[in-house]
Amino acid sequence: MQFKNLNELSAFSQLKTLKPINLHTQLDARRIERSTVPCGGGLTYNWAAMPIEESHLRAFQALADEQQLIEKYQALLGGEVMNTGEGRLVLHHLTRGRVLGEDTSVFIDEEEKGSFYQEQLAAIESFSQAVRQGELLSSTGKRFTTVVQIGIGGSDLGPRALYHALKGSLPSQKRLKAYFISNVDPDDGYEVFEELDFESTLFILVTKSGTTQETLTNYEMVKQSMLDLGIQGLDPSKHIVVVTSKSSPLATSDQFLRAFYIDDYVGGRYSSTSAVGGVILSLIFGFDHFKEFLKGAHSADVAALELDVKKNGALLDALIGVYLRNVLGYPYTAILPYAQPLLRFPAHLQQLDMESNGKQVNRNGEPIEYESGPVIFGEPGTNGQHSFYQLLHQGTSVVPLQFIAFKESQRGEDIEYEGSTSHTKLNANLIAQIVAFAKGKSDNNSNKNFPGNRYSSLILGQKLTPYSLGALLAHYENKVMFQGFIWNLNSFDQEGVQLGKVLANQVLSGEVEESALKGYMKLLLGE
Amino acid sequence: MQFKNLNELSAFSQLKTLKPINLHTQLDARRIERSTVPCGGGLTYNWAAMPIEESHLRAFQALADEQQLIEKYQALLGGEVMNTGEGRLVLHHLTRGRVLGEDTSVFIDEEEKGSFYQEQLAAIESFSQAVRQGELLSSTGKRFTTVVQIGIGGSDLGPRALYHALKGSLPSQKRLKAYFISNVDPDDGYEVFEELDFESTLFILVTKSGTTQETLTNYEMVKQSMLDLGIQGLDPSKHIVVVTSKSSPLATSDQFLRAFYIDDYVGGRYSSTSAVGGVILSLIFGFDHFKEFLKGAHSADVAALELDVKKNGALLDALIGVYLRNVLGYPYTAILPYAQPLLRFPAHLQQLDMESNGKQVNRNGEPIEYESGPVIFGEPGTNGQHSFYQLLHQGTSVVPLQFIAFKESQRGEDIEYEGSTSHTKLNANLIAQIVAFAKGKSDNNSNKNFPGNRYSSLILGQKLTPYSLGALLAHYENKVMFQGFIWNLNSFDQEGVQLGKVLANQVLSGEVEESALKGYMKLLLGE
Repeated sequence: MQFKNLNELSAFSQLKTLKPINLHTQLDARRIERSTVPCGGGLTYNWAAMPIEESHLRAFQALADEQQLIEKYQALLGGEVMNTGEGRLVLHHLTRGRVLGEDTSVFIDEEEKGSFYQEQLAAIESFSQAVRQGELLSSTGKRFTTVVQIGIGGSDLGPRALYHALKGSLPSQKRLKAYFISNVDPDDGYEVFEELDFESTLFILVTKSGTTQETLTNYEMVKQSMLDLGIQGLDPSKHIVVVTSKSSPLATSDQFLRAFYIDDYVGGRYSSTSAVGGVILSLIFGFDHFKEFLKGAHSADVAALELDVKKNGALLDALIGVYLRNVLGYPYTAILPYAQPLLRFPAHLQQLDMESNGKQVNRNGEPIEYESGPVIFGEPGTNGQHSFYQLLHQGTSVVPLQFIAFKESQRGEDIEYEGSTSHTKLNANLIAQIVAFAKGKSDNNSNKNFPGNRYSSLILGQKLTPYSLGALLAHYENKVMFQGFIWNLNSFDQEGVQLGKVLANQVLSGEVEESALKGYMKLLLGE
Repeated sequence: MQFKNLNELSAFSQLKTLKPINLHTQLDARRIERSTVPCGGGLTYNWAAMPIEESHLRAFQALADEQQLIEKYQALLGGEVMNTGEGRLVLHHLTRGRVLGEDTSVFIDEEEKGSFYQEQLAAIESFSQAVRQGELLSSTGKRFTTVVQIGIGGSDLGPRALYHALKGSLPSQKRLKAYFISNVDPDDGYEVFEELDFESTLFILVTKSGTTQETLTNYEMVKQSMLDLGIQGLDPSKHIVVVTSKSSPLATSDQFLRAFYIDDYVGGRYSSTSAVGGVILSLIFGFDHFKEFLKGAHSADVAALELDVKKNGALLDALIGVYLRNVLGYPYTAILPYAQPLLRFPAHLQQLDMESNGKQVNRNGEPIEYESGPVIFGEPGTNGQHSFYQLLHQGTSVVPLQFIAFKESQRGEDIEYEGSTSHTKLNANLIAQIVAFAKGKSDNNSNKNFPGNRYSSLILGQKLTPYSLGALLAHYENKVMFQGFIWNLNSFDQEGVQLGKVLANQVLSGEVEESALKGYMKLLLGE
């Protein structure tokens, strides 16, 4: 297996010669029908409104083969050290199953990692059932009705996005209430506290290292607020579980009701399928719901093994993204779910994509000479249509788009009004937008002119369920992984977050030399 | 007064010759102290970490003078037709006061518009007080405890962002509960319904035209859901008020408890200070709170009249933005509030900025030959630090940043932990980030190298109050207006949203000729 920079690949030289096709003339029903690729978990990826044709697909296949993308994915699954910067394995796929077959084992220090994740799952199952069935009660004997996750970054964005995404998949009386505290801004935590009856609330403290400043501060805030109530018998240690690594200072503390373990081989932004997402989602929705979600993710992981780019949605999505970024030069992608429950999914993808591939060095730490990860942003449609779509249609810059949609609504409740249901209106709007973006419209009044050739792809499922959501999450994880391979990056470290932490600690300690720090301290802290 | 395209201005030719300065060497305490500009409402704009110096400021002043930016603002305030595409005045400033002096009047069809907005305010005041004091009860005799806004785009994003921004400024027992329904996706409305006791809920239907598809559909859903409860006496028309224009089909309907009026001279994305924001914010927080918010906005409007770019925060912010966009070539800006209550403020700014200036024709409808509005995105810090900041620090693209911060937390509740309060930790992180972005850090390990010269500005206030929030909102409105003047655009229409509406109606009616529409209808609707 060899690792080459993108600009060293002969297939990339070939790809660079290929012009985008003109969607004005090329996009029609026949093309749409022929452009659907499976993603696993019942999802499909449709690239009809992307500016590519057979010649591009051949170049993508050549690039995938030359850069050995599937081979690298298999190596990652098999336990190679793919997180080169930190010298670590990358095992988030294993949290949902053995993709290469039941006899694949990955050992670290004599621990079989697949079994480790299964053990954690079993612990989550029994704990979540005990809480949900009222067998395990609070310190004052109340049933736990509310859960609050205390975490930031990967311990927050993924689980939070998934909570919103699944909320409508179960009636409210079958769910626990859920809140999240992430920001070190005290206005975050105290706003959540307004909503809580602490006696019936279970907190989940999530920090892999056990040292995350924001999370430990918010943990302290929770404990103090609970004790300040002065309720007899109310004991924080009976209301807080921890999700951390076995080497963390919190791992062996007796201040927690339970400890669930994660490890260094699952990065924060890839940890929603580990105990980081598992504990809270199993508590809210029940363990079976979470299990379905894992099955969906596993299905997408298996689908991503396919060698043929025309049959592998994650792989093709990644390759088209590289064509847009490195050949056509677009520095951003909008993620536009036509599904209100996915309202926070773009925020999760911002972390997943931008933290993984927002890099300027390759996997060996050498500077690269081409663009890497784009800026990701987005909001649900149809809301976005009444907001920033103006720029997408008629701005001076072209922003590539990715739509996400489902044939059915999640809750199934709907009304018929003026001849159609709300969900049909939703999807009719999406259809209209894809075509308006692609084909545009000429008008003698330039202000009403739509240039078209604004490219989009579509990820489509039958319905937003735990299973399809799992596949959707894993689709993006695998897309980002493939793009990292194409760019020859390490998508699994995040050195870019370190400098800010060091300087923040300098400011807090007051031991500051740097004049600029002093200047802003005077401005913001009055020091 | 003359209107020139940006590339026709001699001051712009001059600006294009100016290189960015090197912040590695230039950013220090003295520069930070000298770089603060007032914005009104107690807010300041600090540009120390932007790559500019005296020569840039002179060029900005020349550009502001040559393009007559303040004169155009005054003309707009005085009632000129600045929305050229639609042939309309632009009067959102007037919703918060007379900026040019108490004797400025703007008449349309013999109606004095300042008085019109004041009348609406008076109606909002008495109505909101009657509801909040329990004088006006629901159809079943209950007190209204919850309000729900039904609207989309400008009728949703601004008011929603402001609600979150102000939530912590009053104790929960002094607030009404609030929800928003915007998306035509039925999963949006039914999720909100889960939380409601319809008997004590007041709905606010907001649609200027009275014809917005999503909003009328959701209105129908509300009525049906209310009637389906089968509660004797429960009468939707006693639970719903409307905010609409006098020419709308809803204006004279007897199906509403009250009607509040807006007009065509306040665009949706500029309407938070009109009845669109006023009714719901006055109901939630009380009219005095909303009045304070208007005062803050007015203060920023007055501050934006200043001719000297070194004393006018909105003007300088606009000019620096144009330098970043049209000289340095950056296609995006990240808005990063270090204030959790501003979590949805970037989503409002996405609409405000991208819908106003995402244009490819000038105010006369002629194609422009330069870039216009950038992509706007953002999330609160410190959350973003654990997410997409990796790309901001070490990605291959430079993303200009705008931070927003306050010296005090909103709620005033805080804890001390490891020698500092949470709010001090928050601002220490911000200080660290600004300096890390600007100055970077060299390291022999390229993976730990931070290139620096990643530019940012800072909007700073003492505390997030209704007053400072009003100023913050108006600061951005005025910045966007000035940029529109610089680019010679009409920032007040949105023709780019029309084509999608037309095509969506074709899809819904089934009268479709276009093959691509048929192709996606088969895929998504099974037709």
